[in-house]
Amino acid sequence: VRVTAIAGGTGAAKLLRGLAACVAPGDLTVVGNTGDDAEIWGLHVSPDLDTAVYALAGRLDARRGWGLRDETFRCLDGMAEYGAETWFNLGDRDLATHVFRTAALRAGQPLSTVTQVIARRLGVEARVLPMSDDRLRTRLRTPDGWLDFQEYFVRDKTQVHVLEVWYDGAGVARPAPGVVEAIADADVVAVCPSNPVTSVGPVLAVPGIVDALTAGRARVVAVSPIVGEAAVSGPAGELMRSRGLPVSPLGVARAYAPWLDVLLVDAGDHGLARELARLGVTAVPADILMTDREREVALARRVLEAAA
Amino acid sequence: VRVTAIAGGTGAAKLLRGLAACVAPGDLTVVGNTGDDAEIWGLHVSPDLDTAVYALAGRLDARRGWGLRDETFRCLDGMAEYGAETWFNLGDRDLATHVFRTAALRAGQPLSTVTQVIARRLGVEARVLPMSDDRLRTRLRTPDGWLDFQEYFVRDKTQVHVLEVWYDGAGVARPAPGVVEAIADADVVAVCPSNPVTSVGPVLAVPGIVDALTAGRARVVAVSPIVGEAAVSGPAGELMRSRGLPVSPLGVARAYAPWLDVLLVDAGDHGLARELARLGVTAVPADILMTDREREVALARRVLEAAA
Repeated sequence: VRVTAIAGGTGAAKLLRGLAACVAPGDLTVVGNTGDDAEIWGLHVSPDLDTAVYALAGRLDARRGWGLRDETFRCLDGMAEYGAETWFNLGDRDLATHVFRTAALRAGQPLSTVTQVIARRLGVEARVLPMSDDRLRTRLRTPDGWLDFQEYFVRDKTQVHVLEVWYDGAGVARPAPGVVEAIADADVVAVCPSNPVTSVGPVLAVPGIVDALTAGRARVVAVSPIVGEAAVSGPAGELMRSRGLPVSPLGVARAYAPWLDVLLVDAGDHGLARELARLGVTAVPADILMTDREREVALARRVLEAAA
Repeated sequence: VRVTAIAGGTGAAKLLRGLAACVAPGDLTVVGNTGDDAEIWGLHVSPDLDTAVYALAGRLDARRGWGLRDETFRCLDGMAEYGAETWFNLGDRDLATHVFRTAALRAGQPLSTVTQVIARRLGVEARVLPMSDDRLRTRLRTPDGWLDFQEYFVRDKTQVHVLEVWYDGAGVARPAPGVVEAIADADVVAVCPSNPVTSVGPVLAVPGIVDALTAGRARVVAVSPIVGEAAVSGPAGELMRSRGLPVSPLGVARAYAPWLDVLLVDAGDHGLARELARLGVTAVPADILMTDREREVALARRVLEAAA
């Protein structure tokens, strides 16, 4: 089976590792969110793409859920010494990714090309694509003004009230080469348990991607990032509320309803099955927390079975 | 006494440390060569300015003569993993300097401003100025074509024949703010034992600097980078030959004759005193090798005495 996964950050990394254990590498494509890309110290940082690549390379720091294992932070210490902002933790080895990517982008390479070079060099055989080579940035309106996603997420640790989420650049962004085809040609599209508003939302905001999901022959299976009435991790709850979505698997189903076939939900949420069915979404109970590697693989299998 | 030092790299670092031990910090200005600045991985690297700043901060790696003490090279390893060129060794802590500088330059700050911020943050009280905020690059013509200085010096380890040296951009470069004044107002101008062609030469190539040396009231004292018929270190010999200069203190005196008052030479070279006198240069014998910290300070004292 050919699988295309739509991926944000931490939660996605777990499911991607699981999928990579179940699918031939040549049959796995990851479409990664770039709405939370940022310029840090003048370097182009792509947190979600890097998390996907590092996870598939077996190099992700499992405890933190971001960055590389066995990392050091000497450059960061130096930047602090110079009075630069250091709320975004860039490790020394990780820095090579950002320096290499920034140089390639400045030399005119598209993000998709340099992402593929980085992935291949780290031994990742699956294809990792940014949703777009064009600039699309998730911006959040708060009572004190607009924030970039990383300012909201890392600097302010999500401790501000979000009134509105805006995908800056979505109007003119085009899917990166291969993205629409990867969705159209897939047998299964897996939507990772990522934030529907700021991880999956930016991907869907790229014109052409929802059309590909709607028109494609693939079965589309999502894993709920919400258990009960709370996000497994991160600010998905608050952000879903800002969109007027209920913070529950039902809210996830509503956000994805036009093209979603199956939503894997926690067994405790299976009571929502009838409401989901009304949206045309089949609820399938599953152990969705992925607290260890075995469960990552088991959940990936469950995704593939649910699509069958 | 107010001292302004014209400085290249390794040899300069030693004399600068010596001068800093003899002169009040507010009375020492360093005018650093930027002709060997380079873009490495898209980052603006200023090797001579950094060597001066690190030396004055007591952070220079004494064994290598460049970069920072106790350095790690994790980012460099990562760049190698990505297939980037890694012949220029950038350490992780050192990288902060280049990332910080590059971001400041891209934000429109002049090199002199960011250099001063870096120096102050590292606790350097002396003033360190680039010779120019404008781009001037030392280029070397070889039988196989033109090279940037760092390609010649670091990548090719000076193992190519140099036919010609050209200061690209010298025609339009202006001295950085404060440079002409620092020369004009100094009691002593110390020309460090740096390569006359590729370290001091680019400084002199900036229009206005030779005029300031000629017109200034300062006594100008140089330390010969040549002992006998060979450079103390580096490719000064080959490069002086390419300019038609004899590889000896006499060649140094010829290069600097229009504005040089005193040349400190190795005792074994004092026989050249009469020839130097004919150029208007007083030869003063000195222990110019600076093999330890005490000798750095002793030589700095000798420079100040010779100027008196």
